[in-house]
Amino acid sequence: MAKIITLLTDFGLKDGYPGIMKGVIWTIAPDAHIADLTHSISPQNILEGALALARAAPYFPPETVHIGVVDPGVGTERRPIAAQLGDAFFVGPDNGLFSLLLEDAEQKGATIKVVHLDHPGFWRPTVSSVFHGRDIFAPVGAWLASKIRLEELGTPITDPVRLQIPRPEPIPGGWRGAILHMDHFGNLSTNIPQSLLPAQARDLRIRLGEVEIRGLKRAFGEGKPGELVALVDSAGQLSICVVNGSAAERLNSKIGDVIEIRAQRPKK
Amino acid sequence: MAKIITLLTDFGLKDGYPGIMKGVIWTIAPDAHIADLTHSISPQNILEGALALARAAPYFPPETVHIGVVDPGVGTERRPIAAQLGDAFFVGPDNGLFSLLLEDAEQKGATIKVVHLDHPGFWRPTVSSVFHGRDIFAPVGAWLASKIRLEELGTPITDPVRLQIPRPEPIPGGWRGAILHMDHFGNLSTNIPQSLLPAQARDLRIRLGEVEIRGLKRAFGEGKPGELVALVDSAGQLSICVVNGSAAERLNSKIGDVIEIRAQRPKK
Amino acid sequence: MAKIITLLTDFGLKDGYPGIMKGVIWTIAPDAHIADLTHSISPQNILEGALALARAAPYFPPETVHIGVVDPGVGTERRPIAAQLGDAFFVGPDNGLFSLLLEDAEQKGATIKVVHLDHPGFWRPTVSSVFHGRDIFAPVGAWLASKIRLEELGTPITDPVRLQIPRPEPIPGGWRGAILHMDHFGNLSTNIPQSLLPAQARDLRIRLGEVEIRGLKRAFGEGKPGELVALVDSAGQLSICVVNGSAAERLNSKIGDVIEIRAQRPKK
Repeated sequence: MAKIITLLTDFGLKDGYPGIMKGVIWTIAPDAHIADLTHSISPQNILEGALALARAAPYFPPETVHIGVVDPGVGTERRPIAAQLGDAFFVGPDNGLFSLLLEDAEQKGATIKVVHLDHPGFWRPTVSSVFHGRDIFAPVGAWLASKIRLEELGTPITDPVRLQIPRPEPIPGGWRGAILHMDHFGNLSTNIPQSLLPAQARDLRIRLGEVEIRGLKRAFGEGKPGELVALVDSAGQLSICVVNGSAAERLNSKIGDVIEIRAQRPKK
Repeated sequence: MAKIITLLTDFGLKDGYPGIMKGVIWTIAPDAHIADLTHSISPQNILEGALALARAAPYFPPETVHIGVVDPGVGTERRPIAAQLGDAFFVGPDNGLFSLLLEDAEQKGATIKVVHLDHPGFWRPTVSSVFHGRDIFAPVGAWLASKIRLEELGTPITDPVRLQIPRPEPIPGGWRGAILHMDHFGNLSTNIPQSLLPAQARDLRIRLGEVEIRGLKRAFGEGKPGELVALVDSAGQLSICVVNGSAAERLNSKIGDVIEIRAQRPKK
Repeated sequence: MAKIITLLTDFGLKDGYPGIMKGVIWTIAPDAHIADLTHSISPQNILEGALALARAAPYFPPETVHIGVVDPGVGTERRPIAAQLGDAFFVGPDNGLFSLLLEDAEQKGATIKVVHLDHPGFWRPTVSSVFHGRDIFAPVGAWLASKIRLEELGTPITDPVRLQIPRPEPIPGGWRGAILHMDHFGNLSTNIPQSLLPAQARDLRIRLGEVEIRGLKRAFGEGKPGELVALVDSAGQLSICVVNGSAAERLNSKIGDVIEIRAQRPKK
């Protein structure tokens, strides 16, 4: 069975940095299959990286090693870490990049082990202070995929850094949430999970700035091209979309914009 | 021998959607080699996807499974399908995305089998109505690469959706065609195949809006930097290019722009 | 042990050209692992490609085959070549794309063998005059990864084309160099190696246009967000950066901009 390693960074695709990490990985684990999750996280945006990783990691086979590098603190006192969360492994900076997956493992009562990567014998012999993706995280990820146990790579810790993720808050008759992510299509994904939506889709009232949307579509194709619709996205979150268009552009939205939902029977 | 799967989508590279599909594939077919053809098809542009897939698929080994997802009708009545066309396999929505390859197989008298994917046992257990790439097409593609036969995946059909591809039309002394594709370099690929060009390259006259080009170069380097030239591109189609520059920018062209060719002896 | 092949081109990610090359490679070498270094080299910019390849190639395992295609002269008299430089292989046009790695091999006294690819039996049966990446370089790279020896692929040559790389020049009390590369983050990498910097980091004075920077940081995190800093980048070169920002934007810099360094004791 192949060893699988994924990469998620803010390195972009222009300069060859992710390719360099693959070279380092294959030097240690020549048979590894490597998938790019994305290298287009906005520079230094740890929350965006954490969200993308939490959406993708659950779809990979057990034992997959996910290397995440959004790392404004590279070369400073911030710790390099590796973790087992459930049946998957994670390697990267201790800055909250893995905290959504950590919370998820906690809620499920899954295995949680985190180590501070303090055994340089598993790193590249020379470690720069600007590119730990190449010098620490890629080799450690490759060793994990080569059946080196997590415990051999560093000292156990129990206090990994956690991000503050904005949560939906109750308001009279509904919930107030926020836009957490805008995707390539301009769909606006919110922090409101399907479980907070009214039982009857047609009862849903959504307010986003000046705009109100009524009801919930099941699929894009249920709306007319150009129509502004609400639906549950592939991550199970309430999402605001324009059919065959961009809600982000239409509404001129940005991350953090407030969204309110209420349940209200359609008037007769 | 490795199993090979390709991915072509309009998902972009920012959000990790293609990576998620790889996770699903490797969960079923852990040894598959996966190639990204492109994830930058313009959103919902089925024709653009069909052209890109038809240009790329012939260069892959027999038995390759191509998963194509440009899918504005996801979650509606449009059928999910899989097909064997010649010695290659295709998986995706039934919206015309594979119709150029279907025509090509028909013209060659190659094997053609198409099935409506209606056996949910080969899908992910939960199927969203917005991301069939993850929930239906990736797992079905992985099963095909794992030697599940096409016939096991669904019910045979004979009426897959076909795109209307604009064809060149005869005009007095030549042909009227259109620009079908503008590539990364700004080269303008047309729907006029090499076989319609005059036998003598120097006899070719091309009209594109206000511009006339005379003759056909064999290679970019035969023109001067900045020169507007015509040549036969790597897909065997007449293409309008600027040497070391962008014809799309120079001519301010768009998909569908008319191009006319005539054969005319150079004046003495 | 897997065979590893990398691809570096100016093809972009939109049109599927790199995917086509993977199809050709896997037809010959079905077990090869293929890494994209970058396909976003600026069109026809050989120097940019040469720099990116020289930064990445050293991190790959021995025997890796690097295919580089930035090829404005495709289809003309420029030779297609393959080379062994040290323990790695390179395939592409003879236009200087590999010349930094060639120089490096010369300085190290490593193995250097270069052949003119003139044995069409190792190419695709039909060779276009516009896409040698597909028709010559991909198949030759795949054969090299399949243990065909370099000598079988062509005729030895000793005069591959070399790029003129701008070198730092001594000035009174220091060095005058230039910006060679601007990365995804807007970091400005120069042609001044760490070895030319003063022994005491605090003694460094850098002039770039109207701006002066004093001293050298060890890591981004040693500066304040938004601060303009100098540090040694991951390739060992002096680099000008904005902490959590873009120096390229801040300074409105371009490739070739002059940078001067001097050693000067801080005034008491």
